[in-house]
Amino acid sequence: MQAGTRRGRPGHDLESVLRGAVKVFTERGYDGTSMEDLSRELGITKSAIYHHVAGKEELLRLATDRALDGLFALLDDISVLDAPAMTRLEELARRSVLLLAAELPFVTLLLRVRGNTRAERRALARRREFDIAVASLVTQARDEGDLRPDVDPAVISRLLYGMINSVVEWYRPRRADRSADLADAIVAVAFDGLRLQH
Amino acid sequence: MQAGTRRGRPGHDLESVLRGAVKVFTERGYDGTSMEDLSRELGITKSAIYHHVAGKEELLRLATDRALDGLFALLDDISVLDAPAMTRLEELARRSVLLLAAELPFVTLLLRVRGNTRAERRALARRREFDIAVASLVTQARDEGDLRPDVDPAVISRLLYGMINSVVEWYRPRRADRSADLADAIVAVAFDGLRLQH
Repeated sequence: MQAGTRRGRPGHDLESVLRGAVKVFTERGYDGTSMEDLSRELGITKSAIYHHVAGKEELLRLATDRALDGLFALLDDISVLDAPAMTRLEELARRSVLLLAAELPFVTLLLRVRGNTRAERRALARRREFDIAVASLVTQARDEGDLRPDVDPAVISRLLYGMINSVVEWYRPRRADRSADLADAIVAVAFDGLRLQH
Repeated sequence: MQAGTRRGRPGHDLESVLRGAVKVFTERGYDGTSMEDLSRELGITKSAIYHHVAGKEELLRLATDRALDGLFALLDDISVLDAPAMTRLEELARRSVLLLAAELPFVTLLLRVRGNTRAERRALARRREFDIAVASLVTQARDEGDLRPDVDPAVISRLLYGMINSVVEWYRPRRADRSADLADAIVAVAFDGLRLQH
């Protein structure tokens, strides 16, 4: 009913509104951004935004779900691999870097979410669910004798994703996509360490 | 400041004002915090704050310098160690985790700084200077044949500190200080990797 032919009017389709909102939320903080601010920053009326979403909570949900749905899809993908837990964990790490590079603005916003509102708490709860799934894979890899047993699996999963997620601070997409090289480098460093084996 | 905590007039000495300001800056963002906000949140008058500092820029400088001076002091400390670059790098990483745990609010604020004002840009410039020093130590360790040569030293230094700094997201000091264990775990994971050597 409302969709119509919005093409050719940049800033007025849902995807443009969403990407614009993600940029503003990331720069000014979700909490500190009103619909008024969004309207001004995106250069469209508030009613044009309300045409697509019920409010800024829905924009945050759509944005963080883009990143979170991607991460949970990776968990599904690696769960069907016929391989040891360690190999699945490596594959999950590699694909997480590629997802981060492909959906950089959405992942960056997800990582900045602090949890003062319902939409933020919901995103944080889904992140925790993902962390628990990673920690469980780490435990499995340890039980199969492939992963170091001297560090708590929950800490390992936090350190691994701490390293992966830190990439949002400095990675900038270029015309020549180097995200596969970055993913290889991160997997090499995280799984085999910085030390050169003699 | 609550009524019951007035003993010794907390909130009126520079250290209390600074710690209070760091908390507010971290929660609301430095940019979005006015001296008016600080005065209200700290429960002291603006003139009581101006008694100690020229303004919020100086508070940010003092706060980020607490973290940055600590990091540069570590560089000095490890530079005099009579040991291979790899050992000095491990020691720097270990001590960085301990510093982060000891000065958690200050390091957290430093890592949230985005660089819109002069005080923020100054903090970011000092961070970059530290990163360059770490990358140079990584290069030396690689040239001495102890560190993997297949990943760019600048990327390695970012990944190593990405892992270390991610700890601010979840580490909370307890009465029993476990930061030394955490530092050991991070050094083990970063330098020798997650994989158990068979």
